[in-house]
Parts: sequence; structure tokens; C-alpha cells
Amino acid sequence: MSQCVCVSDFEERARKVLPKAVYDYYRSGADEQRTLHDNVEAFSRWCLVPRVLRDVSSVDMSLSVLGQKLSMPVCVASTAMQRMAHPTGRWPQPEVQYAMGTAMMLSSWATSTIEEVAVLYIYKDRELSLSLVRRAEQAGYQAIFLTVDTPYLGRRWDDVRNRFKLPSHLSMSNFSAPSLSFSEDSYGEDSGLSVYVSKAIDPSLSWEDVLWLKAHTQLPVILKGILSAEDARQAVDCGVDGILVSNHGARQLDGVPATLDVLSEVVQAVAGRCDVYLDGGVRKGTDVLKALALGAKAVFIGRPVLWGLACQGEQGVTELLTMLKEELRLAMALAGCRSLSEVSKALVRRRDDFSRL
Amino acid sequence: MSQCVCVSDFEERARKVLPKAVYDYYRSGADEQRTLHDNVEAFSRWCLVPRVLRDVSSVDMSLSVLGQKLSMPVCVASTAMQRMAHPTGRWPQPEVQYAMGTAMMLSSWATSTIEEVAVLYIYKDRELSLSLVRRAEQAGYQAIFLTVDTPYLGRRWDDVRNRFKLPSHLSMSNFSAPSLSFSEDSYGEDSGLSVYVSKAIDPSLSWEDVLWLKAHTQLPVILKGILSAEDARQAVDCGVDGILVSNHGARQLDGVPATLDVLSEVVQAVAGRCDVYLDGGVRKGTDVLKALALGAKAVFIGRPVLWGLACQGEQGVTELLTMLKEELRLAMALAGCRSLSEVSKALVRRRDDFSRL
Amino acid sequence: MSQCVCVSDFEERARKVLPKAVYDYYRSGADEQRTLHDNVEAFSRWCLVPRVLRDVSSVDMSLSVLGQKLSMPVCVASTAMQRMAHPTGRWPQPEVQYAMGTAMMLSSWATSTIEEVAVLYIYKDRELSLSLVRRAEQAGYQAIFLTVDTPYLGRRWDDVRNRFKLPSHLSMSNFSAPSLSFSEDSYGEDSGLSVYVSKAIDPSLSWEDVLWLKAHTQLPVILKGILSAEDARQAVDCGVDGILVSNHGARQLDGVPATLDVLSEVVQAVAGRCDVYLDGGVRKGTDVLKALALGAKAVFIGRPVLWGLACQGEQGVTELLTMLKEELRLAMALAGCRSLSEVSKALVRRRDDFSRL
Amino acid sequence: MSQCVCVSDFEERARKVLPKAVYDYYRSGADEQRTLHDNVEAFSRWCLVPRVLRDVSSVDMSLSVLGQKLSMPVCVASTAMQRMAHPTGRWPQPEVQYAMGTAMMLSSWATSTIEEVAVLYIYKDRELSLSLVRRAEQAGYQAIFLTVDTPYLGRRWDDVRNRFKLPSHLSMSNFSAPSLSFSEDSYGEDSGLSVYVSKAIDPSLSWEDVLWLKAHTQLPVILKGILSAEDARQAVDCGVDGILVSNHGARQLDGVPATLDVLSEVVQAVAGRCDVYLDGGVRKGTDVLKALALGAKAVFIGRPVLWGLACQGEQGVTELLTMLKEELRLAMALAGCRSLSEVSKALVRRRDDFSRL
Ligand SMILES: Cc1cc2nc3c(=O)[nH]c(=O)nc-3n(C[C@H](O)[C@H](O)[C@H](O)COP(=O)(O)O)c2cc1C
Ligand SMILES: Cc1cc2nc3c(=O)[nH]c(=O)nc-3n(C[C@H](O)[C@H](O)[C@H](O)COP(=O)(O)O)c2cc1C
Ligand SMILES: Cc1cc2nc3c(=O)[nH]c(=O)nc-3n(C[C@H](O)[C@H](O)[C@H](O)COP(=O)(O)O)c2cc1C
Ligand SMILES: Cc1cc2nc3c(=O)[nH]c(=O)nc-3n(C[C@H](O)[C@H](O)[C@H](O)COP(=O)(O)O)c2cc1C
Repeated sequence: MSQCVCVSDFEERARKVLPKAVYDYYRSGADEQRTLHDNVEAFSRWCLVPRVLRDVSSVDMSLSVLGQKLSMPVCVASTAMQRMAHPTGRWPQPEVQYAMGTAMMLSSWATSTIEEVAVLYIYKDRELSLSLVRRAEQAGYQAIFLTVDTPYLGRRWDDVRNRFKLPSHLSMSNFSAPSLSFSEDSYGEDSGLSVYVSKAIDPSLSWEDVLWLKAHTQLPVILKGILSAEDARQAVDCGVDGILVSNHGARQLDGVPATLDVLSEVVQAVAGRCDVYLDGGVRKGTDVLKALALGAKAVFIGRPVLWGLACQGEQGVTELLTMLKEELRLAMALAGCRSLSEVSKALVRRRDDFSRL
Repeated sequence: MSQCVCVSDFEERARKVLPKAVYDYYRSGADEQRTLHDNVEAFSRWCLVPRVLRDVSSVDMSLSVLGQKLSMPVCVASTAMQRMAHPTGRWPQPEVQYAMGTAMMLSSWATSTIEEVAVLYIYKDRELSLSLVRRAEQAGYQAIFLTVDTPYLGRRWDDVRNRFKLPSHLSMSNFSAPSLSFSEDSYGEDSGLSVYVSKAIDPSLSWEDVLWLKAHTQLPVILKGILSAEDARQAVDCGVDGILVSNHGARQLDGVPATLDVLSEVVQAVAGRCDVYLDGGVRKGTDVLKALALGAKAVFIGRPVLWGLACQGEQGVTELLTMLKEELRLAMALAGCRSLSEVSKALVRRRDDFSRL
Repeated sequence: MSQCVCVSDFEERARKVLPKAVYDYYRSGADEQRTLHDNVEAFSRWCLVPRVLRDVSSVDMSLSVLGQKLSMPVCVASTAMQRMAHPTGRWPQPEVQYAMGTAMMLSSWATSTIEEVAVLYIYKDRELSLSLVRRAEQAGYQAIFLTVDTPYLGRRWDDVRNRFKLPSHLSMSNFSAPSLSFSEDSYGEDSGLSVYVSKAIDPSLSWEDVLWLKAHTQLPVILKGILSAEDARQAVDCGVDGILVSNHGARQLDGVPATLDVLSEVVQAVAGRCDVYLDGGVRKGTDVLKALALGAKAVFIGRPVLWGLACQGEQGVTELLTMLKEELRLAMALAGCRSLSEVSKALVRRRDDFSRL
Repeated sequence: MSQCVCVSDFEERARKVLPKAVYDYYRSGADEQRTLHDNVEAFSRWCLVPRVLRDVSSVDMSLSVLGQKLSMPVCVASTAMQRMAHPTGRWPQPEVQYAMGTAMMLSSWATSTIEEVAVLYIYKDRELSLSLVRRAEQAGYQAIFLTVDTPYLGRRWDDVRNRFKLPSHLSMSNFSAPSLSFSEDSYGEDSGLSVYVSKAIDPSLSWEDVLWLKAHTQLPVILKGILSAEDARQAVDCGVDGILVSNHGARQLDGVPATLDVLSEVVQAVAGRCDVYLDGGVRKGTDVLKALALGAKAVFIGRPVLWGLACQGEQGVTELLTMLKEELRLAMALAGCRSLSEVSKALVRRRDDFSRL
């Protein structure tokens, strides 16, 4: 099998090994998928302006995130149903991330138990939600990511067409009742997951619930899914510990801005009062560098990890992360940055500043 | 038959069941069809900036238009010759709209009688025009839409190529004379409809005629086909009750702006002195939301309804409207809007504000 | 044979009947042909903002150009070697233009005698040039167009590849010597015409020569090939009677602006001191309207006429001009213009004013 | 074999005669190759605004560069491994450039000896670097180009896929040890050249080394690979004699600006204190003209020369340079420039000044 030299090579290979409905579920964005493409394209709207002659014989990519020392500013985003990605159904063990020196954020809907999970949906049943928090705390997780962009599930055409549901041998392992573990027999004509969400997830989630969550846990709380300066300001006022600028991988409302396009505004609104992260469309080392230059503390990647997982399980994920790490190292060196502290806004410039076509 | 998950699925299916000349007649825009594409593209030039954590457990889409309570801000635009769309030749009965809680505006050239009609062309024969108004009043219609963008018919290449005319078993049912019911035998080398218009419709229509119409009816009068702030201001000065920003589905003068592109200006010029509606290119729930955010009170859809009709008659129209309604509901929820009053200009932003490519 | 409904239909048909080298010669622009495409695209960068309710029952397109009354503001540009376009080798007789009420400007390199010619190249042999002027005067021509953009022939790749030269039965009929009539046996590896030009045409042409020409003829002199405000001002200072904004149909220097893009500047620079015309990329009635709105007194069309000629000789030219005339009439009516005096800058707007994508 | 009328014809022919891995190595840019395409596209973002009637019967393209009289402002850039381009493995002899009146800059990694070389990489072994300088001086070279954009080799996907290394019969002829002459047996899974660079080249290169080099040679020193005004200013402060605005043919860091896009800024920053050159994407005579108008003293071309070499060896290079020279001559004439001193910023204009689409 030929070597994967970039993320799309991994995706291409994953496409070949995954069942169509699973590949579609992973790949898809909402509706016409304009935002899906835009998330990726946004990165190419920025140029890197490299500096030369700066002795880049050593490049330091390490940083400290939420009290954890990471080897690079790239973490793994939560993706539901990740166990469908690999024949053996095994998600890379924590050892992988320790080896890689990176962080992993897992979904409440992970098809593995809570002990690997730290991203939260608030269920209509608040006690259930709280019990998930407790389990996360006990499992030693460092932070809780609260997904705020999913009062209802976005409409993904392929999932509707495929009437997407979990393969029969899998269930959401955090839950035992079929109604909560997404393993009922039939969900009608729609995407099964969409039906599941509208039954179980609480669409009344509001700023009050953020305060409630902050009051019920000592763990840092990060809001995942903020896209506006206004909401960012309000989040800071609620005392959150971090903001993840995200549009859920373009899977919720089509037509929202690319995450990179709103990053600067959010960073400015937050004005250093909490950390700002970004996910959505990160595919290359230079993408990471651009997001950092625009003010993200670190970035998360969603789909690329699923492609790695689908290709070769844990080994695939390790390869993919290694590749990104090397890409980032090279990008920093060629741009003249010896450490993350040298990555600043001066490094990037809107392409159309020179070249409005 | 596979499920239709979006308007283009309906169109694709309609293309398969309709005779080519009919499909062409419905689909076509004038000349090179630049405005036809632009009407649709214009929506993607605006982003939705969603707000989160707003308790969207219930979303209210209802509103009151011209004294009528509607379940959503989406109405059906008049389209001539709609009876060609369905084998049984039956246009959905008023019951459909009542069931859907939406409004329908029918063309003088409807291939069904005036009792379902409320959009007016002014005929060279003014008495004839007036009689159409009277019949509309007696049939209990709530308003009269006066089409102001059709002194002559736009040139649609496919119709010329197809020498388009009505199938022999149909005629414009509001008229009995062949010369007015568009059922003559031959219209030469040109589009038959174009020949018909130049014979029957009055190209001298002017602002005086608007005053004349206002003087002759108690029904509210809405001008359909305004594209400039200047004309909007003059319309208000003439005492009209509403303006429909429309370019006739890009079927008249190619190269005019997309309707969404001029909406804001018209809204600003009108400054609340009458209602402003929009049609042209609306294909998705998010499109409706964008038009509303830019100031439209409600939108009208033309072709999508014809595709629904062609697919499955009344049932198809119902399905299509249900789909759009659900799309709008989801879009509002994910954008953080609980009712139409929360939809404002703050919700949208020009894509190139972030991402001038 | 199916009907031609637009200029590209004519071109497509011409492509089928013409020998490849001839079609290539007509169609080609210089180098990569960026300007060739841009000439046409430039028109779509402007929107028409139509006005409604203006009584357009009659539309007057007539005007007076260089003392001649024309039925529409569209004239025929000079194109060398036009006799290759039609099997019978006959260029439409003057009767055609009289019938159509339009003007025709013929090239010194017409493959028909001077009596039909009024566009001048200045030959190295000035006496020869002067004799061409005298013949034009005696033939009753109303004006002399001096081509100022061709000190050398632009490089058109297809002509080089085809080693383009006149078919053996044709010659430039204004000249008898083979060296001047472009009928030598061989022109080596290059485009034959390019070799011809570098031998015969005077690349030292300068503003002095314009003064010299003005001094030697009573006919109005129009400079053909101006693209900058600076040159336009200098032309006015030299006392010319008109300026034709032209890039020679994008056949000279690739990368120059589309003619429509520089029209306004030239019009502004000239400030009414002489007439300004435009050619390049005019293909539709709405194109004519846009050029007029931006300040052109009339436009010229080059290639479209050749396509008409190739399709059906004189008859094809008549059909093509009739089509354009009808397109312009309809465009004016739908835009709300009853006469050319109502066509003003207010009618157009840059598309990116609304829709910078 | 059909005639080559433009650079891409040469490339197309080269593609056919070269082994795939060699063609790929020459053609490739880093990563997604966005900058590779942008280097070329940038030229089309500028229009030439030609002036007419300026007596262009003679056009003088000669200039003096680094004390050498050149017949045109186009020089040959250094390209490593150029001997793979031609079956006989022979690089055009100096005679070619004398005949053409142009300058050639050869790479330290030329697959021919130092006597033809003047572009320097600084090796970890400084004595080795210095000995290369001495050999260049003794060979009578006029200047030293120091490549500053290659502390590590950029990642070119095709080279990784092809595990690119030198064909076994070739080596870098400036070095005898296999470890330095890039002729080891295996370089693992990566691009062999990339492995070579990371072993031999000094990534700690800094401004101090520039001062060190200046102190150790009398030859003028030109920094090759500057892309920012800041670095340009610092270079001038270090006393360099010239700056070559270059992104290494888009082979190092993908996503950096096109060279033409940053040229003006660098020229402005330098403010005449040293010469500024440009390479990257120059493919046509009009490209040269645009670069000159934006302030470059001369331009260098990389790949085009390799295509000429691959097609027909020395003869191919001569043909290619002759073609470019003729293109430039014609472009200057049609633009109204009689000598390089008449080429100024007034000649160019951003296309989107007129035509923001
Ligand atoms: C298959 C899949 C499932 C996902 N499931 C969740 C989820 O359960 N909860 C959540 O907050 N985000 C979820 N996301 C969004 C990711 O956390 C992340 O925001 C997104 O994938 C980042 O964009 P990228 O895929 O372009 O890197 C999911 C994304 C994918 C692709
Ligand atoms: C087939 C067809 C026939 C139409 N006939 C009429 C008509 O008779 N009178 C009128 O005012 N508008 C007519 N229209 C325009 C529509 O009322 C409406 O303005 C347009 O279709 C909206 O654009 P959309 O099709 O993109 O939704 C027609 C449109 C179509 C597609
Ligand atoms: C085949 C051909 C031959 C031409 N020959 C001449 C010529 O001899 N003299 C001249 O001034 N312009 C010549 N032109 C340019 C035209 O006069 C005119 O400027 C141009 O064709 C207008 O652009 P259009 O073809 O896009 O309408 C020629 C154009 C074509 C296409
Ligand atoms: C095959 C190849 C090898 C090159 N090797 C070197 C090199 O060894 N040193 C260097 O400074 N630049 C090198 N370059 C970059 C060129 O000197 C030059 O900057 C670039 O090719 C100009 O861009 P162009 O190819 O678009 O004209 C190389 C370029 C190519 C295409």
C-alpha cells in the first residue's frame, strides 16, 4: 500500500475501507455543505509571511493546556460513534496520546464508556447529565467541554438518505437503556441520530445551565461551539475557563462562517480573560500555524483522526499525528519561528491584501 | 423511489417526469441566465452568525400578512401555466394552503379560472383588466399583486428554440377567446408566449395606472417586480400597500441584480411605510432566514412549488412546503431565534466581510 | 438547421463551416487570451438596475453618428481578411447597412477594394498611405479610423501554429504588388500576417503622424485603439474627432484591460470634447446598453459579424444585426428607457457593489 | 515535431521525454502547491495599460546587472540537479549565455562542477562553504547568491512518493564524498534530497552568517529568498548588494505569498539602497514587463530553462530564451516603451481596480 503523505491520502484510504453509510456519516456536513468546504478553504485565504535567517536549528512546539503539558498545540476533537471507524472497534488507548504528547477530548456519544469521555451534551434528564460529569471527574479528566451548538441535530442529507443508525453490534457505551444508547430498532424515514437527539437532548439549554454546571464541578468548563464575539463575551462573564471556536465540523447549521474567519474577533472579544481554541478544517501543519497566529492557543482535529483510525487503528492515528507534528515543525522552521511564543499575528496576512482577484 | 431531501431532489425528479419543453419553460431564465444563477448564489454571499444557549425548545414561525395569519413566512408565488406541471392538470386546492397555513398568489395566466387568481397583468383592454379585479374581489381574495416588470416578455432562449406554446388540451382558463387564452394554432418562429404578450399586454403601463387601480379597488395593492430604491419610494408615494422585490424569477431582463442583493436598499428606502416581500432563488430554510434578517416580511417561492407539483401533485406541494417549514424551524433554532421578532440584521453578515477571496 | 438565438449560436455554426485556420484566425486573441475572455466577462461585472412603470410602448434607438443617421447605436468594426468568411467571398454590400440603418467600418486589409474601406494603417510608404486616404475620400466615406495599436502584429498562438496566410485565391484587394497584398508564397515558420506587418507597417507611428493626417484630410479622424485617459487627453489635444476605445479585439497585447473597464475613465478624460466609441466583447443587447450607460456614443462589433457572414453571407449578417437590434430594443424597454437620452450611468451598477464574492 | 509557441509547449514536451520522477522533481511545489499556482496567477492580477503613438521602431532591452552588460533583463535561476534534464547530461555552456547576452546563476547542487556555480548553501561545515566561495571567486564569477530560505528542505509530496534521489550515474559534482554529493544508496521512506539536506545543510544560518560571508569575500552578495519588507530592510542594514525576491519556486513553505505580490513592498522598503530582483512564475514576456514595472531590476527563470534543456539540450535553452526575448520586445513595443527606463509603475494596474469580480 502506498504511503500517506497528507491527510487526504488518509481520507481516500478510509473511504475505501469504510462502509458507505459510515464514511458518509463521518464526512458529511449539514445541508449543502458550504460551511464544510469553507472551513477548509478559510485557511488558504491567509498567507504565511516567513522570516529568514533566524537560526531555526531547534524548534520548540510544546505548551501547557489546561494544566497539562502537551508536545504540540494539536489535540483530538470528540467525534461520536468513533468505534465504527475500525474493524476491531477499538479507539486508541490513552497510551497513544501520552506517547504522542497530545490531548484527546471524547464525546458523550463515544461508542466506548465514559472513562474515556469528557465532552458533554446536556440531557433532558439533568441527573443523568450530572452523573456523566461525576464519572468524568472520577476518571481523572482535566476539563469538561460543553457542546453548546446542538439543541437539535443538524440536517445532513446523506444521513437522511442512508437512514443512518449504529451498526447492530455497537451502542453508545455510556448508556444502557436502548432509548439512550442509540440502539433502537427503527427511527423512521429520517436520520436515526437526528431522531435520537430530538428525543434525548435538551434544546432548552441556556446560559443558566452554564452557571449550573460551573456550580456543580471543580473541573474547568470549556464551551464548545461559540462563533460570535457577543457569545464569547457572555461566556467569559459566566466564568467559563475556555472557549472552543467551533461549528461542529460544519455539521449543524450550514451557512455559518468558517471557524478561522471568526477566530480573531472572538480572541479580541475575550481579551485574554480565558483560553481560546479552534477546531474545523485543520488539515495541515501550516493550518495549525495560521490558527495560532490568529490567536488560538491550540487547535483540535476531528475527521482526520477518524481517517487514521479507519486506515490502521491506533497505529493509523499515531502515524497521522506524527505526520501533522512533523509538518508543523517544518512550517515553524521555514517561517522562522523557534517556539510558539514567536508565532504572532505578524506571521499571517490575508491573501487578498495582496491579491484580491 | 428515493426520498427527496432538498429542493433540487424535487427538481431532478420533476425533470424526469415533465416533457422537455415544459420543464424548460419552468426552469429557464432570460438570455444567458446570469441573474437566474445569481438569484440563488446571492444567498450564499451572506453568512448566518448563530447565537447559542438561548432555550430554543419552542420556535414560533407564525406571522400575519395582509390581514391573514400564516404558519410561516413562506408563500407560493404566481406561476403561469402551472397546470402543465401535473398529469391530472390539477393545481393544489385552497385546502392545501389552509392545511399548510400558507398563502398562495396565482397568476392571471393560471391555467385555471380566476377564482384562484390574484396576480394581475394589465391588458391593453382596460375593461378586461377591471373585470379580472372584480372577479378577484368577489372570490374573496385578500390582495392584488400587480406585475410591473413585464411590459414585454423576456427572451428565454429555450422557449424560442422550443417555440413554446400551451399543450393543446390546456388554455388560460380566465379567458375564452383564443387570442387571450393563449391557444391559437401558431405563433411563428418565436416563443409563442412572447408573441401572445406583445399582442395582449399593455406596455404603456405607468405610475398613473397604479393610481387608477388603487382608485378602483378596496383590496390592498402590492407591486410585484420592484428592484430599485427609487421605484420603491415612488411606489410608497403612490400609496401602495406592499412591494414585492422580484425580478420575475430572472425571466425578464438578464443582468439585473439578484433580488436579495437589492432587498436592504428597498427596505431602507421604504422605511416601514409599507410591507416589503421578496421572491427569487429561495430554496432552503436558511435562505428564508437570511431574507427575513435583511428586512423582508415574508418570501415567495416560484419554481420549487412547480417541482413539487410535477412530482406528485397536491401531495408533492405539501411535502415540499413541509420540508421547507421544517428547514426553517431548524435554522431558527440553531441560529438561536425563538420567534420571527428575534430575526434581525445582526443575524447575517456578508461572507466577504471575513473572507474576501 | 436549428435557429440561432444568440451570437454564440452563430459562432458555433461558423466554426463548423469554416476551415480551421480561418476560424482560428478570426476567433483568436493574443497569447494566453486573458484579455479576450475579459473583454466579454467585463460586461457581466455590471448590473442593469431597471426602472418600471415608464410607458415603454415605443422605444427609440436611433442616433446620429459622424453626421450619419443610424437606426441603432451598433456599428460593424473593421476586420481584415473578411472574405475568407464566406464561400462566395462576398462581403455584404452597402445596401445591407443601409437596410439595417447601421454603419460599417472596413479594414485597409479588407480582401475587397478600397471603395469599401475606411480604416487605416499607416504604411512605411507615406505616399501609399495618403493614396488610401484619397480613395476613401473619393468613395464618399464619412470618416477615417486610424488604427493606433498595431505598430507590430500581436502574437496569436494559433496563427503561428497554423502558419496562417491567405488562401491562394484571395489577396488584399487594395494592393497589387504581392509584397503589399499579403500573397507571397512563404512567410517562414511564423504567422504569415505577422511577417507581413513587420515588413510593411510603420512602427514609428506617433502623435506627429496624427497631426499630419489631420492636415491632409477634411474627413473626421477617429483614433482606434486608445485604452488610457492620458492618451485620450492627448488625442483631444491633437484635435481628433473621436476616440474608439478598443484593444483590437484582444488581438494585440494580452493582459491589457477589457475595453469596458477603461471606458468610464476615457469618457471622463475626454469630458465631451469629442465622441467616444467602444468595441470589444459586445455580444448582446444588454452589452450595448451597458456600454452606452457608461458613456459610449455607440459600439462596434467585430467577430459576431464574421460569424453571421460565415453562416449565410449577407443574409447571415442581416439576421445577426436584426437579432441584436431586437435584443437592444427589448433591453431598453425592460430597463425603462424610451430613448437613448434616457440611458445614463444611473442604469448600471458594479455587480460587486452588492455582491463582492 | 510541432513548434513550441509558448513556455507550456516546452513543458509539455519535456513531460513526455523526462522520467516521471525527474519531471515531478522539477515541476513540484511544496505541499498542496497553492503558492506554486499563485506565483503564476499573480501576474494575471495585474493589467498592462499600454500607451500608443510613441514611435517604437526600435526597442532597447539592454541593461547592466552587477557590472555585467546583459541583452535583456531575464537571467537563468539556479536549479539543482539540472543534469537529469538532458540525455547527454550537459548543461548549456557559458557560450550560450554569452550568445544570448544573459546571465546564469548555478546551484551548489548543480550536477556539474563549481566552475559553473555561484549560488551558495551554507554547509554545517563552514570551511567547506568557504572553499566553495573561493572556487567561485577563482572561476571569475561576478556575484554570490546566498540562498536564505532553505534551513530545511520543503516537503514536496511527489518527491516523497517517488522517494526521489539522483539517478545512479549522476552525483553533485562539487563534492566527492558520497554523503555530500547526494549519491548514497538509500535515504529511507522520505524524499532522498530532504534527508540529504537535513544532514548537510546548516539550519542555524542567521544574519551573523551574512556578515561573516560579506567579511570573507569581495564579490557582491545577493540574498535569495526574501519575502518581507522587514527582512529586506535588515538585509540592507547588513550591507548586502542585492535582494532576490523569491520563494524558491514555491518549493519550500506552501502558503507564502506569490513573489510578485510582495515585490512592491520590498522595493519600497529597500528604497534604492540595493538592487531588487525577482523570480517565481515568470513565463511570458508580459510577465517580465510587469515585474519590471513593479520595481524589479531583472527577473530570473527557473523551470522554463529546465524544460528547454529537456527538449533539446543547449539548443532548447537557446530557443526558449530567444522566444522570451522576442515576447518581451513585442510587449514593450505594444505597451509603448522604447527602453527599460520607460518602464514604470504607471504601466501596470491591479486588475481588480477595474474589475473586482
Ligand atoms: C463523525 C463526527 C462526530 C462528531 N460528534 C461530535 C459529538 O458527539 N459532540 C461534539 O461536540 N462534537 C462532535 N463532532 C464535532 C467535532 O468535535 C469537531 O468539532 C469537528 O469534527 C472539527 O472539525 P473537523 O472534522 O473539520 O476537524 C463530531 C464530528 C464528526 C466528524
Ligand atoms: C413558470 C413560471 C411562470 C411564471 N409566471 C408568472 C406570471 O404569470 N406572473 C408573474 O407575475 N410572475 C410569474 N412568474 C414569476 C414568479 O411569480 C416569481 O416571481 C418567481 O418564480 C420567483 O422566483 P423563483 O422561481 O426563483 O422562486 C413565473 C415564474 C415561473 C417560474
Ligand atoms: C479577424 C479580425 C480582423 C481584424 N482586422 C482588423 C484590422 O485590419 N484593423 C483594425 O483596426 N482592427 C481589426 N480588427 C479589430 C476589430 O476592428 C475590432 O476592434 C474587434 O474585432 C472588436 O472586438 P470583437 O471582435 O470582440 O467585437 C480585427 C478583428 C478581427 C476579429
Ligand atoms: C528543480 C529545481 C531545483 C532548484 N534548486 C535550487 C537550488 O539548489 N538552490 C536554490 O537557491 N534554488 C533552487 N531552485 C529555485 C530556483 O532557483 C528559483 O528560485 C525558482 O525555480 C524560480 O521559480 P520558477 O521555477 O517558477 O521560475 C530550484 C528550482 C527548481 C525548479
